Amino acid sequence: MSQGSRSPARWQLLGEQVRHETRVFDVLGRTYLHPVRGTEKEFVVVAPSDWVNVVALTADGRIVLVRQFRFGIDGFSLEIPGGVMEPGEDPVAAGLRELREETGYAGGAARLLGSVCPNPAIQSNRCHFVFVDGAAATAELEWDADEEIEVVALPADEVYALARNGGIVHGLVLNALMLFEPEWRARRGGTGV
Amino acid sequence: MSQGSRSPARWQLLGEQVRHETRVFDVLGRTYLHPVRGTEKEFVVVAPSDWVNVVALTADGRIVLVRQFRFGIDGFSLEIPGGVMEPGEDPVAAGLRELREETGYAGGAARLLGSVCPNPAIQSNRCHFVFVDGAAATAELEWDADEEIEVVALPADEVYALARNGGIVHGLVLNALMLFEPEWRARRGGTGV
Repeated sequence: MSQGSRSPARWQLLGEQVRHETRVFDVLGRTYLHPVRGTEKEFVVVAPSDWVNVVALTADGRIVLVRQFRFGIDGFSLEIPGGVMEPGEDPVAAGLRELREETGYAGGAARLLGSVCPNPAIQSNRCHFVFVDGAAATAELEWDADEEIEVVALPADEVYALARNGGIVHGLVLNALMLFEPEWRARRGGTGV
Repeated sequence: MSQGSRSPARWQLLGEQVRHETRVFDVLGRTYLHPVRGTEKEFVVVAPSDWVNVVALTADGRIVLVRQFRFGIDGFSLEIPGGVMEPGEDPVAAGLRELREETGYAGGAARLLGSVCPNPAIQSNRCHFVFVDGAAATAELEWDADEEIEVVALPADEVYALARNGGIVHGLVLNALMLFEPEWRARRGGTGV
């Protein structure tokens, strides 16, 4: 049932230049050639490293959350732990590292829940989501300079309520919770969350 | 159950400067003062306009999707329609406009499903999600230059399967589908989607 009269073409990437550098991302200018029209055009792309976010579940069914002041929105945000992956780092290893450093929690079994592109239109990186089972507060906190984090472990049902009523506004955190939802539903039994 | 020993402070915004301008966002340098430590530091923020994405449901239970080449990921992406809001524009009006222009679909009742912050850490804007009920292909397409869009309406259950198996990778599109899920579940009956 396709109404679109024009099938989208794959533009050809001719080259890219760094237009602006920051500590957390580069802004690239990518020059593309349209294969049919023959036109060249530059498109702007935000290029950060890949990110990882962690759904850490405790033995008593709580999800580990962090509350931080966030400079992007000039306000506080309730999130799951996460951060920037190092080059070549495995997402699960990165997730366990960020969980430990930010919250002092360490876990048992860990696995990749899935990955998304934060914004395919103008951003190049991926965000990976890791599930850590049997998480417990056992490690020392290792905050980066300027990190001030309130760590709180809330019952998972309460976290899903916050996700649906505006208490959690971070789009990528909501992605992680969506990907974890079937697993949580299977564990808790019953139908809706 | 809080383990964090340091409650996060609200940094004070002293001022901001545009560090880099592009067609779709500015990069800002925001200077913040820490209220306790008295330190000043600049943080980088991506500042686009607000965005809107639309879950448009047809009378026969299909969700309207668009497939486009996306320069951020240098590849194709299957998404719901959406775009950039104009200054002062109402999210529902903006969603209906983007739906009509991109896909030629118009709808009956429309309402706001919710909103997220795409990335509170480094990005200032919000993305709003609009539900359009009873959408039908009735309008003329009005693509921007460089827009080439394949429009396809898939059964909602199929869309949710794509959302869970990696067929849809756009984080904000997945947010919209999560927010629409209770409504869809109530309409289709049954328990899981």
